[in-house]
Amino acid sequence: MARLFHVPLSPYCRKVRLSLAEKKIEVELVEEKYWEKDPDFLRRNPAGKVPVLRLDGQVMSESAAICEYIEETRPEPSLMPKTPEGRYEVRRLVGWFDDKFHHEVTAKLLYERVNKKVTGEGYPDSKNVKEGARAIKYHLDYMAWLLDHRRWLAGDQMTLADFAAAAHLSALDYISDVDWNRSSAVKDWYAKIKSRPAFRSILADQVPGFRPPAHYADLDF
Amino acid sequence: MARLFHVPLSPYCRKVRLSLAEKKIEVELVEEKYWEKDPDFLRRNPAGKVPVLRLDGQVMSESAAICEYIEETRPEPSLMPKTPEGRYEVRRLVGWFDDKFHHEVTAKLLYERVNKKVTGEGYPDSKNVKEGARAIKYHLDYMAWLLDHRRWLAGDQMTLADFAAAAHLSALDYISDVDWNRSSAVKDWYAKIKSRPAFRSILADQVPGFRPPAHYADLDF
Repeated sequence: MARLFHVPLSPYCRKVRLSLAEKKIEVELVEEKYWEKDPDFLRRNPAGKVPVLRLDGQVMSESAAICEYIEETRPEPSLMPKTPEGRYEVRRLVGWFDDKFHHEVTAKLLYERVNKKVTGEGYPDSKNVKEGARAIKYHLDYMAWLLDHRRWLAGDQMTLADFAAAAHLSALDYISDVDWNRSSAVKDWYAKIKSRPAFRSILADQVPGFRPPAHYADLDF
Repeated sequence: MARLFHVPLSPYCRKVRLSLAEKKIEVELVEEKYWEKDPDFLRRNPAGKVPVLRLDGQVMSESAAICEYIEETRPEPSLMPKTPEGRYEVRRLVGWFDDKFHHEVTAKLLYERVNKKVTGEGYPDSKNVKEGARAIKYHLDYMAWLLDHRRWLAGDQMTLADFAAAAHLSALDYISDVDWNRSSAVKDWYAKIKSRPAFRSILADQVPGFRPPAHYADLDF
């Protein structure tokens, strides 16, 4: 069986979990305290990060590369459009969320509030938290603008771009950092993706010391 | 003709320039002072970053997505292996350089020494510069280890992984931050890639206020 070394609230791990679940690939989840730099773990991934996936006899890292590999080797159900232009747009948005959104929002809210406590790095920096809380509004507005024109973020089909975005937003929702009232288009999109069977394992996550809000796992939030 | 909005020492822009040149796609280079946040530029790319490429009537951003698009629409000469495992390894290494190497090395050396001056953000932070100078050694050793087993970074074929790595290293070489004596395997690899016609435009770059070392454009360095 496939095995994923992960931490529950990592958006990169969640994106891979969503891909695996959507393709109905069974996976054993192993929590990996990557910040403790266990030598066995570093042998698996010299970058020292999660996710690390064991699949098809390989040990793989880098979530974008992993998701493309899963898509190429298990093309159904498809998470990528058929045209180069469509695939470009998916990859652009995956980059948007995993780089820009991560840097401006996830790193400033989730990492400050949760990772610092879990890894023993101290207290949240309130300047970062404020910046993150301001930046997420602009990103939710950008998503609303995309969803005004499209059924899903990258077009008419659900793709890896939706999983990348939902991975970040679901992790932030766990700590009540998403204002779902800001855009009904974004809320409707999240309700759609949240109700997929692939989302179940993510909605069942529990992080000791952090209790999610009541609406976190509620499909009718 | 294709048009690329770029800055000369950006490794992400250089990676796209190398891809375009290797595929013999003519391109007009336009320097874009992205930090001045010109409204016309922000309309082209709401992420406010370079590179931005106009090609096939589209305006594209995110260097990884751009390079995959070029590869899919102009498959010859190929910069990606034929197997999913091979492509995974290329994407893993592109992620390694554009995320990890960037974060640990390029941001700490090039951005401190050059970008801060060009954008008027002040003086280099010596702590960052020291960390970057230490981290590049570990990365050169990792490259040497890969090149002990392989002709090119991701396998027996030159790929986007080599362009990603060469884009970062060439920008750092412009400010004399690469110790080519650390590994003969890495030096030989760089000599091979540097001598390709695709590299010419990069070796001709000039950044006002920063003169490259004599060996920068020398193929026999």
